[in-house]
Amino acid sequence: MPRFKLLIEYAGTKYSGWQIQKNARTVQGEIDRAVREATSRREFELYGAGRTDAGVHALAQVAHLELYTNLTPEQLRRKINDGLPADIHVLDIAKAPHRFHARHDAVERSYLYQISTRRTAFGKSFVWWIREPLKLAAMREAAGAFIGLRNFEAFTADDPDEKSTTVLVDAVDIEAHGALILIRIRGSHFLWKMVRRMVGVLAAVGRGDIAGREAAAFLDPAYAAGARATAAALAAPAAGLFLEAVRYTNDPPIGSMQPVVNIQHGLQG
Amino acid sequence: MPRFKLLIEYAGTKYSGWQIQKNARTVQGEIDRAVREATSRREFELYGAGRTDAGVHALAQVAHLELYTNLTPEQLRRKINDGLPADIHVLDIAKAPHRFHARHDAVERSYLYQISTRRTAFGKSFVWWIREPLKLAAMREAAGAFIGLRNFEAFTADDPDEKSTTVLVDAVDIEAHGALILIRIRGSHFLWKMVRRMVGVLAAVGRGDIAGREAAAFLDPAYAAGARATAAALAAPAAGLFLEAVRYTNDPPIGSMQPVVNIQHGLQG
Repeated sequence: MPRFKLLIEYAGTKYSGWQIQKNARTVQGEIDRAVREATSRREFELYGAGRTDAGVHALAQVAHLELYTNLTPEQLRRKINDGLPADIHVLDIAKAPHRFHARHDAVERSYLYQISTRRTAFGKSFVWWIREPLKLAAMREAAGAFIGLRNFEAFTADDPDEKSTTVLVDAVDIEAHGALILIRIRGSHFLWKMVRRMVGVLAAVGRGDIAGREAAAFLDPAYAAGARATAAALAAPAAGLFLEAVRYTNDPPIGSMQPVVNIQHGLQG
Repeated sequence: MPRFKLLIEYAGTKYSGWQIQKNARTVQGEIDRAVREATSRREFELYGAGRTDAGVHALAQVAHLELYTNLTPEQLRRKINDGLPADIHVLDIAKAPHRFHARHDAVERSYLYQISTRRTAFGKSFVWWIREPLKLAAMREAAGAFIGLRNFEAFTADDPDEKSTTVLVDAVDIEAHGALILIRIRGSHFLWKMVRRMVGVLAAVGRGDIAGREAAAFLDPAYAAGARATAAALAAPAAGLFLEAVRYTNDPPIGSMQPVVNIQHGLQG
């Protein structure tokens, strides 16, 4: 059966996450319905690279779709988009190798988190507003402890689908862009709730509630139970989080960090 | 009575425009209520520089507020913001001269319009999605006809508050920013519906429905009735429109055009 690679963006605000569920509105559920309407097929496989949680957005989620169709990829894309709500959009559809698997073949995921240092009329669904000033140098020091192959047990909730809590984090970048602070975390894969809890701990370091050098203790098995409770309590809200990119072998490196909303206008001049 | 100058941003999506109304939710109405709650005063004057329509946004609306208070401007700002919904935000409050009038003293208003050349999951409330390719050179040629002191009768609906339909348009700038096309129109003041109808005519020129050199005919009194009907039919939707800035004597010139939403992410790399 032909297989396609889909590139999808969505504002997750109104959805109970990516993963299809019986009694909840989900992004996969909407796309599943749109594919059925566009092709009149009921037998197909739609599989996303990352299961984003409720309220989390995607700038470029990847999914594979295995489906019999006579439509060209571009015709299929247009018909699916015609059936989707305004906050879900298929950016691209391309033919993929028969064995391409959106989740298993991904070599890197990149998440972008937007913190706003000010209240903003345009950001409620897309930023976490933190009132206290954040010390970026301390946040970067703490972030250093998270890079490499580490056991992130303290940053996840129990997930029956995960066998291991060891994750390779490639990079944690923290940049100020005007009134926004952008945090990008790149890694092989991420555990359930891991990114929001990492951002929450980094923000606590930025506020001065935790010293930068203490962040490493969250990865120490000796503190596991307490660290997990603390990380859970500090978890950053879903609104600021975007699945930014999913990379496969031979994909180009990801570009520079860019804000999704620009909140500089009124403050210019 | 002390007078203050307020700088305000709002997402206009959920409001029936700026101007306070008895039976509709408006931006001025929300701020009026927040000022009453913040100060326990019922006698004050709140006056905006521009009456934005339903669904139109503001990056930096200006208003003056005349009010007895012991609060510092920053204390007042914080208390007002505490009482405002998330989509309205007072960016700044400063003491103003006793005779400062937000509307009458303004020397220039700048409106920014966002057209998207693609469907986007993040733009529904903030862009006008135009499917057809737009010829920017033709749009710029047409825009040239609108610059200067002109009679914009064809671009307005009857407004009992306006005595004249002559407006000085300082500049119409059109720039592509990735998948967005930004149009900025600056002028002394604007008539009711004028900006949306100008953008609508420019978009019709961009699509090739109207020749660039024909735009001047919209300002010719000989065609007034037909031109008004055409301009009204072509009016751009409110969602893409932002009151970008209001300038007063000695204010610095306005900066470069910047998108409010960034829709480039998924298309990078």
